[in-house]
Amino acid sequence: MLDSNVHAQLAALLPPSALLTSPEDTRPYECDGLTIYRTVPAAVAIPENESQVVAVLKQCYASRVPVVARGAGTSLSGGAMPDKNGVVLSLAKFTRIVAIDPLARTAIVQPGVRNLAITEAAAPYGLFYAPDPSSQIACTIGGNVAENAGGVHCLKYGLTVHNVRRVRGVLISGEIVEFGGDALDSPGYDLLALINGSEGLLAVITEITVKLTPKPQQAQVALAAFDDLAGAGAAVSAVISAGIVPSGLELMDQAATRAVEEFVHARYPLDAKAVLLVEADGMAEEVASEMAEIRRVLADAGATEVRVSKDEAERLLFWSGRKAAFPAIGRITPDYYCMDGTIPRKALPSVLARIEELSVQFGLRCANVFHAGDGNLHPLILYDANAEGEVARTEAFGAAILELCIEVGGTITGEHGVGVEKLAGMCVQFSPGELERFLAIKAAFDANALLNPGKGVPTLHRCAEFGKMRVHQGNLPHPDIPRF
Amino acid sequence: MLDSNVHAQLAALLPPSALLTSPEDTRPYECDGLTIYRTVPAAVAIPENESQVVAVLKQCYASRVPVVARGAGTSLSGGAMPDKNGVVLSLAKFTRIVAIDPLARTAIVQPGVRNLAITEAAAPYGLFYAPDPSSQIACTIGGNVAENAGGVHCLKYGLTVHNVRRVRGVLISGEIVEFGGDALDSPGYDLLALINGSEGLLAVITEITVKLTPKPQQAQVALAAFDDLAGAGAAVSAVISAGIVPSGLELMDQAATRAVEEFVHARYPLDAKAVLLVEADGMAEEVASEMAEIRRVLADAGATEVRVSKDEAERLLFWSGRKAAFPAIGRITPDYYCMDGTIPRKALPSVLARIEELSVQFGLRCANVFHAGDGNLHPLILYDANAEGEVARTEAFGAAILELCIEVGGTITGEHGVGVEKLAGMCVQFSPGELERFLAIKAAFDANALLNPGKGVPTLHRCAEFGKMRVHQGNLPHPDIPRF
Repeated sequence: MLDSNVHAQLAALLPPSALLTSPEDTRPYECDGLTIYRTVPAAVAIPENESQVVAVLKQCYASRVPVVARGAGTSLSGGAMPDKNGVVLSLAKFTRIVAIDPLARTAIVQPGVRNLAITEAAAPYGLFYAPDPSSQIACTIGGNVAENAGGVHCLKYGLTVHNVRRVRGVLISGEIVEFGGDALDSPGYDLLALINGSEGLLAVITEITVKLTPKPQQAQVALAAFDDLAGAGAAVSAVISAGIVPSGLELMDQAATRAVEEFVHARYPLDAKAVLLVEADGMAEEVASEMAEIRRVLADAGATEVRVSKDEAERLLFWSGRKAAFPAIGRITPDYYCMDGTIPRKALPSVLARIEELSVQFGLRCANVFHAGDGNLHPLILYDANAEGEVARTEAFGAAILELCIEVGGTITGEHGVGVEKLAGMCVQFSPGELERFLAIKAAFDANALLNPGKGVPTLHRCAEFGKMRVHQGNLPHPDIPRF
Repeated sequence: MLDSNVHAQLAALLPPSALLTSPEDTRPYECDGLTIYRTVPAAVAIPENESQVVAVLKQCYASRVPVVARGAGTSLSGGAMPDKNGVVLSLAKFTRIVAIDPLARTAIVQPGVRNLAITEAAAPYGLFYAPDPSSQIACTIGGNVAENAGGVHCLKYGLTVHNVRRVRGVLISGEIVEFGGDALDSPGYDLLALINGSEGLLAVITEITVKLTPKPQQAQVALAAFDDLAGAGAAVSAVISAGIVPSGLELMDQAATRAVEEFVHARYPLDAKAVLLVEADGMAEEVASEMAEIRRVLADAGATEVRVSKDEAERLLFWSGRKAAFPAIGRITPDYYCMDGTIPRKALPSVLARIEELSVQFGLRCANVFHAGDGNLHPLILYDANAEGEVARTEAFGAAILELCIEVGGTITGEHGVGVEKLAGMCVQFSPGELERFLAIKAAFDANALLNPGKGVPTLHRCAEFGKMRVHQGNLPHPDIPRF
């Protein structure tokens, strides 16, 4: 519930339709893509311009009301989950592509612009916006920056942080700030990377300058079948160590390809234990030469079959299976839990083998569909929320996968963020000193921890509590919803 | 002078040869590449391993003694200038290449390894380390990270920050910290970019994992002559807007080419007002196609002559002039002041024209040799330190160039850093709120401001003092040596 004074003050700052407080209006905002956690917010503000964002933030700052910024709500880590005493600040009306500069190869966009809409707007200039998360039809660029989103093409073209030049935002105090700029480097500390992936904890983003990339002349994808999963993992390293930088290098195991084939008929080889998709792009001669090398490396690495797309239609068909993998899995299981961890490429064969063992140990099926080229795993744990004990087993299985990622020198998130989901993992990944510095940096921007409270970085106190709850090795505790 | 207690304590931590305190031993450390500022330190510590670094820092922290880390001392902004009451911590003994992993395309190196030595060590694997500052024969990778160094190839391959995966260092408290890691992204705030370009203010670097890049099959360079400087500036934009990403795109004006020609005989066209060097690299077919396009664009942009290197020997000859430009200028003037600012590419023609006007206004010659592709200017102001008033005029000219950079949306440094040189410029570039956040971030790592004090980020008090000294618009005040 919002204090009635605060409500009146916010109402004075916004048009009537831009402030929602009744439960039927605020309930749609109770969760994001991680539906397991739900909280109805005290209010939802939907400002129309930056001045209104400033006004709302100033008011919330003065009244010590928490604020959670929200884009399309596609976060998979609860990054946009509301605070029950707080305001959800929706950027849904910030949908303008302000300018495209084909000479500088940049676009200035508002945070509510959908990822794919940038590429569509840049297409007439022969340009595109490279990072392409699976949710790119729906997710917005503001959320992409907040989570430092990745995607299939990030191996060659980089993550969001590598494709953003400037971020404009508003601090909780109402002060307007800019990170980065038109120049490649700037004096002072580099805070552009800090705002990327800061999960809404430092500022509310109001405008972004993104880099645009020239569209490659041609692209071709090789589909390779393997009769064991570890072999496919080893082939990933073989491709990279051959000096090839594919524009996409994705792995799907048999559980995934079978589910996909029933759904989109992408003509994947169903008897294969794993399938690799390896894309080359660039000039025609470059693609031809790289594809010949890819064929050779995949054959040497033990592929039982390698098919190369003959034309653009076949290339899109091969990719259609990968792009539809998550909904396809959704058709064969009541529920699934999409994990996100990153490991060094060389650890792929051993980690994939270990996940197969864990699947048997926990008695839960697991499908693997992931960005193999940059070691970003997405094991999907298949479960039934209505079956006795399966939710707890699923969470324990997921936690074991994350600990495995840390053990081999990887991290607990590749592109989905920490949000509320992985706070406990942060206590395992980082030392108290590291967490203290994170908290000090947070305090440099938001000393009262009003922006997206209880997300991203746990307090040391919270880590101590998690530690007590940690009943046996191999299992992280249930990721609760803590507060700073 | 070091307190005798502190001296005794440091002496107990280090081998006798690793602690210098007599003036004849410490004087060689009084300045770096920016020789205009000199301070003899109280002591110089030359630790042999990380444990000794930790011990020295712990002792200095306990005794509140300032510490300035130093690599090869090639900084052009006074980044390694000592504090007279402090210890210079030299990383000169940290020269080991710890490991090269051709599969992961990374090298683990100590901070005292020379930039070029990494490329030499990676060559047997067909790899190289991409950022190549002009000082790459001498400068060390630790300093490259501290200053976020650039170079000719940064347009295509990125700055230091884009080529570093992990930085290990020691805080002033003695705590060992790691930034980044083997994975492409990591949870928590992205502090890897923060340590890059932090100018020794946050931690002393003890180990770095750099990315290595596959050596291109082929490279070719076009040398284009222009009969006016602004036209050459416009041609830079034309190349980029044609969708070409050259591996190098450098501009030299007539003052520079004439000085160079006398020195290295690179066969530059001496009647041209400006020369562009545009390099393409990649596969043979790719280079051929890109070079044809570069030729066409340069001709359309008004080049009076375009020559393309016929073989590797000619390519190196064309580059020899660019690489030798600074010493060549040194031959034709008693002194020169190398400026460093960055502007949006589209502003190149107008800014170059304005610099020519300023040259007349201040009565000082100016040569331009710079990374045109990424808008990183290096105007060299030619002066004679012994001529009445020339130093002051030079500084005023330099300040006017930097203000011009800010005016067109650029920044006061491209790759040389702020150091002691550009503290006043920081007050112009950033708002008090921005500086306050920089200082708060500094405090998260070094609350007592003991690491490299008086560099990088001015206090608000200091900015107020600069403001009072600022006598008339267009001229920044003399860059003094302030303290936090």
